[in-house]
Amino acid sequence: MQLTFIIFFIYAYIPLVQNTQQQIELDEISIKPTVGEPWPKPQSIQTTSVRFAVHPAAFHFLTNETSQQCDLLRNAFDRYYKIIFFPQTYMLHLTDPLLADIKIHHLKEALRNVSDLGDVTLLKRLIVNIEQPCEEWPRLESNESYTLVVKEGHALLDAVSVWGALRGLETFSQLIYPDSDLQFAINETTIYDFPRFQHRGFLLDTGTHFISQKTLKINLEAMAQSKMNVFHFHIVDDQSFPYDSITYPELSGKGAFDRNHIYSQADIGELLEFARQRGIRVFIEFDSPAHSRSWGRAYDILTQCYSEKKPNNKLGPMDPSRNTTFEFLKNFFHEVAQIFPDRYVHLGADEVYFDCWESNPSITQFMRQMEFGTNYSLLEQYFMQTLINIVNATGKNYVVWQDIIDNNVTLQTDTVVEVWKEPYPDEMARVTKLGYKTLLSSCWYLNLISYGDDWHKYYKCDPYNFTGTEEQKKLVMGGEACMWGEYVDSTNVISSTWPRAAAPAERLWSSVDTNDVIEAAPRLAEHRCRYLRRGIPAAPVNGPGYCPTEYSG
Amino acid sequence: MQLTFIIFFIYAYIPLVQNTQQQIELDEISIKPTVGEPWPKPQSIQTTSVRFAVHPAAFHFLTNETSQQCDLLRNAFDRYYKIIFFPQTYMLHLTDPLLADIKIHHLKEALRNVSDLGDVTLLKRLIVNIEQPCEEWPRLESNESYTLVVKEGHALLDAVSVWGALRGLETFSQLIYPDSDLQFAINETTIYDFPRFQHRGFLLDTGTHFISQKTLKINLEAMAQSKMNVFHFHIVDDQSFPYDSITYPELSGKGAFDRNHIYSQADIGELLEFARQRGIRVFIEFDSPAHSRSWGRAYDILTQCYSEKKPNNKLGPMDPSRNTTFEFLKNFFHEVAQIFPDRYVHLGADEVYFDCWESNPSITQFMRQMEFGTNYSLLEQYFMQTLINIVNATGKNYVVWQDIIDNNVTLQTDTVVEVWKEPYPDEMARVTKLGYKTLLSSCWYLNLISYGDDWHKYYKCDPYNFTGTEEQKKLVMGGEACMWGEYVDSTNVISSTWPRAAAPAERLWSSVDTNDVIEAAPRLAEHRCRYLRRGIPAAPVNGPGYCPTEYSG
Repeated sequence: MQLTFIIFFIYAYIPLVQNTQQQIELDEISIKPTVGEPWPKPQSIQTTSVRFAVHPAAFHFLTNETSQQCDLLRNAFDRYYKIIFFPQTYMLHLTDPLLADIKIHHLKEALRNVSDLGDVTLLKRLIVNIEQPCEEWPRLESNESYTLVVKEGHALLDAVSVWGALRGLETFSQLIYPDSDLQFAINETTIYDFPRFQHRGFLLDTGTHFISQKTLKINLEAMAQSKMNVFHFHIVDDQSFPYDSITYPELSGKGAFDRNHIYSQADIGELLEFARQRGIRVFIEFDSPAHSRSWGRAYDILTQCYSEKKPNNKLGPMDPSRNTTFEFLKNFFHEVAQIFPDRYVHLGADEVYFDCWESNPSITQFMRQMEFGTNYSLLEQYFMQTLINIVNATGKNYVVWQDIIDNNVTLQTDTVVEVWKEPYPDEMARVTKLGYKTLLSSCWYLNLISYGDDWHKYYKCDPYNFTGTEEQKKLVMGGEACMWGEYVDSTNVISSTWPRAAAPAERLWSSVDTNDVIEAAPRLAEHRCRYLRRGIPAAPVNGPGYCPTEYSG
Repeated sequence: MQLTFIIFFIYAYIPLVQNTQQQIELDEISIKPTVGEPWPKPQSIQTTSVRFAVHPAAFHFLTNETSQQCDLLRNAFDRYYKIIFFPQTYMLHLTDPLLADIKIHHLKEALRNVSDLGDVTLLKRLIVNIEQPCEEWPRLESNESYTLVVKEGHALLDAVSVWGALRGLETFSQLIYPDSDLQFAINETTIYDFPRFQHRGFLLDTGTHFISQKTLKINLEAMAQSKMNVFHFHIVDDQSFPYDSITYPELSGKGAFDRNHIYSQADIGELLEFARQRGIRVFIEFDSPAHSRSWGRAYDILTQCYSEKKPNNKLGPMDPSRNTTFEFLKNFFHEVAQIFPDRYVHLGADEVYFDCWESNPSITQFMRQMEFGTNYSLLEQYFMQTLINIVNATGKNYVVWQDIIDNNVTLQTDTVVEVWKEPYPDEMARVTKLGYKTLLSSCWYLNLISYGDDWHKYYKCDPYNFTGTEEQKKLVMGGEACMWGEYVDSTNVISSTWPRAAAPAERLWSSVDTNDVIEAAPRLAEHRCRYLRRGIPAAPVNGPGYCPTEYSG
C-alpha cells in the first residue's frame, strides 16, 4: 500500500481566500437548512432571538392540575423526551430497545453537565393542559388545535384534545435545535396552530410489494413528524393478499406471495396501536370488485371470463350474479369492521372494466333477470350498492375511488369520493357538484418519480383549487399522498416517500398562503435533516447539500 | 383493543379454486425470478437438471498443486464461503464482525446436518487453478476469463489470473441456490466466460452529496457481484471537496461541507484495499478547470469573474494565466499519483464555459501575450495540455470528458475520451473517428430517474452501436454507469443504483446477443433477490412481485 508514505512538498505559496466569500459560495450552490423551524408551518408563529438552553437532566414534561390525563399523553412525553435529547437512538427502540437504552446511557455520559453550560437560561418544563377527556381513537372530527408558548423558565402547551397535544409536542420538539454552545436550544416562541384540513392522509400499497412491519412503523413515525393523521392502508391488490383473515384464512394462505409475506392479526394490532399512539387513523382499503385477483386464488368469487363462448382461464372482477359472492363479502366485512376501529372503510371500486362481465353467459342472464339491458354500469351500481348496504350494516362509513362516479353510478349522498384523476380542478369541481364529500389525491402520486426537485409540484397543488360554490368547497375533507407499490418495497419506500410526502402534509395543514417553494425549501431542508437526525432515511430533494448529521443506518 | 375478540362465523361454503390456476395467475402478474442463474450471463453456459447438495460442513475451497497462491485468493475463499452459506450476515461483517460471527454461529446450529440430508450427492470441493502469478492491483489489461466446471463430487475453476478467479468465484456463488430439501443446491454446469469489454465502470459522485464510507463499501460489493471492475470515483465537485489532501489540507479543511464530510487518507486506503480485494480498479477523478469552486474556497487558483470591469465576487474555472495555478496542480497531482495506484486518472475537463475567462482583464492580457486572439478554446487547450504534461510526468495515463473535444481542443492520441452526450451513436462515431480511445456513459446516467422498468433502456444501449470502421470499434474500451449525486446520498444511493446498474454491467460483460429484456427480466429478478439475500437493498425494478428473502436492514 502506498498510503504509508508521508509526502513532503515544498510548494508554492498559494494565497488563502477570505471566509466571507466561502460562505457566499456555499449558499449559492446549495440550499441552507433553517434552524429550529417547524414543518408543517404553524398557522401563527411569533419567535424572537431570545434563546434558552434545554438539558435532559433539567427538563420535564408535566400536565397542569386541571388537565385531563391519559396513557396516550404519558407515552408521548416518554417518546418526545427521547426524540429531543437522543434522536439518533430513537428508531432503534423499534427493533432493539435494550441496545437503544444502552446507547442513551452512553450519550448521557458524553453530554456536558447542566452546571458546565455556564450562565445560561434553562427551559425547565413544558406544562401541558388538555381540556377534553382523552378519546381512545382519533376521528375525522378530532380537534387538533393547540397553543404553544415558550418563554423564560418554562413552556405552556394548551390543547382541546389529546390529539392537539400530540401535534403541539411534535412542534415543540422541532423548535429545539442542536447548538454547539448550549447543546440543545430553543427560542422564545408563541404559536397558535390548527390544521386546514381534517383528513391528511398517506396511502401505502402493500398488495403489489410487501412492506415489512418495521418499515410500516417507520413510515407511521415519519407521518407523525409531518402531522399527517390518516394512514390509508391499501393492504391487498391483484398481486397479493397479505391480510391474514380470521374468517377466511385461505385469502392469505393462497393469496399472499408466501407465508413470509403476511400481516398476522398480531401485526395488525401492533400497527393500529402504534398509529393510535401518534394520533393517526388507520383507514383500511379492501378494493373490489376489481383489483381483486388475489382474492380469487382461494375463493371462487371472481367472474370467469370467456373467449369465443368458452371459459378462457382468466378471472375478472367479483361476480355479482352469485349470492355466494355477497355472503362472502358480508362475512369478510363483518370481520373488517371489528378489527379496524376507524369509522371509515375504503371500498375501492376503481378501474372496473366491463369486458369480462360482458363475456360471461351467467352474467348476461343475470343482467336480463335484473332488467339492466346492456348497461353494465347498472351491474356495477348493483354490486356497489349491495356491498355498501353490507358495510353500512356494520356501522361503518365508506370511501370509494372516483371511477364509480365516472361510470355514472349513483351512490348515497354520504359517500366520500376520492379523486385521483387529472386535471384535478375539473374532477374536484365535478364530484363536489354531485354533492359528494371528496378527498384529493390526483396530484400527489409520489410513486410516479421524476428527476429533480419534484416536491415543488406537490407543494403547489391545492384541494381548493377548483371552480365551485362555498358549499362545494365545504365538501372537501382533505387529501392523500399516495405511494403505490409497483416499484417500492422495504428497500426504498421510506427514502422514496420522505420528505416528498411532507409537501402535501404542509399543504393540508398550513394556511392557504403558505405556498412559496422558495420560502419552503430551506425549511424542508431542515425537516429532512431532522428526519436523518432522528434515524429516518429521508432522501435529498433540494439538489446538492448536506446535513450536519447524516443517515448512518 | 378489539383484537382480543375471537370471531366465529358460520359462513357460506365458498368453493376453493384449483392450485394450477393460482400459479398461472401469479406468473401472469409478476415476473418470476430464475433459480441459480448468474448475472451477468456467461459467454457460454451449459447446465443440466442433475443437481448436488452443498453443505457448509462438507465443502471446501482449494487450490490445486500447480496453482499460483496469494492473499487475494485466500481472502476471496473466506468471503465466498460466507456469501454462499451465510449471506444474511455478510454485509454485517463490514460494520460489526463480532455480531456477524455470532449470527453465523446461530445459523450453523439451525442448519440440518449433512447426515440428515439423506441420500444426496454432495459437491464437496471447488478446486481453483490460477496460471499466472497474482498481480497486486487490477489493470485495464488484466485477464478476467475463467472456466468453471461443476460435476459430481467437485467443481473446477481455471483462470489465467487471480482476477479471473475472482469472477469465477462470483459465478460459482451465484450458481448455488437455496433449496427447501437440500438447503443449498447447485446444478451440473460448464461455463467458459470472459468479458466483452475491459472497462466496466461505475461513477459515483461524492462532491454534491457526501456518501458514507460504509455506503461506498456496500456499493463496491454490489459492483463485484455484477462483475463491474472500475470504480470511477468522482470525489470532488463545485459543492464540496471531501478528499483530505496531505499536500493541501485546506482543500478539505475549507472545501468540504464540514469536518464530518471528509474522506481521510485512512478512509481512502481502506477503500482502495476493499476494491482491490474484489478486483476493482479505483479510477479517481479530480475535475478541472471547471466544476472546481470548492477548490477555490481555500486556495486562490480560480478565475475572478468581472461585471462592468469590476470583480463581481464570482469565481470561474481555474486561472490558466497564473503560474501559481499550475504549481498548485503539479504538487496536487504528484500526491494523487502516489495515493491512487491505478494507471488512469480522470481529469474532468467538462463544462468549461468561457464567459468568466472572457470577463477577466488579466486573462485578456494573457491571451494577447500567448497570441490566442479571442479563441478561448486555445486557452482551454493550453490549460489542459499543461495539466496533461504534469500528469504524464507522474507516469499516469488520463481520461477526459468529451467536452474538450467538442470545444475543438486537440489532445495527444493516447488520450481516453469519455462520451456522455446524446445521441450517443453520433458522439461515439465522432470521437473514435478522431482516433481517441473512448468510454461510453451517455445512455447510463442512472441518476436521471424515471417511472417504470427503466432498466430496459439501459440494457438496450450498446457501446458498439455506432457507424464506424473496425479500427474505430477497437478504440472502445467499455463504458460506465453514472450516479451523479444531486439527489442521492447514503439514504438512497444503493437502492437507486442497484439493480439498475446491473443492466449496463451485463451489457459490458456478456456477449453482444445477450440483449433481450424479456429473457433478462427473470434473471434480473433473481439477481435482485440475491442482492437482498446478501444484505444489499436493491430496489424492485420489474413491477409487482416479491423475493423469498426480503431486505430486513
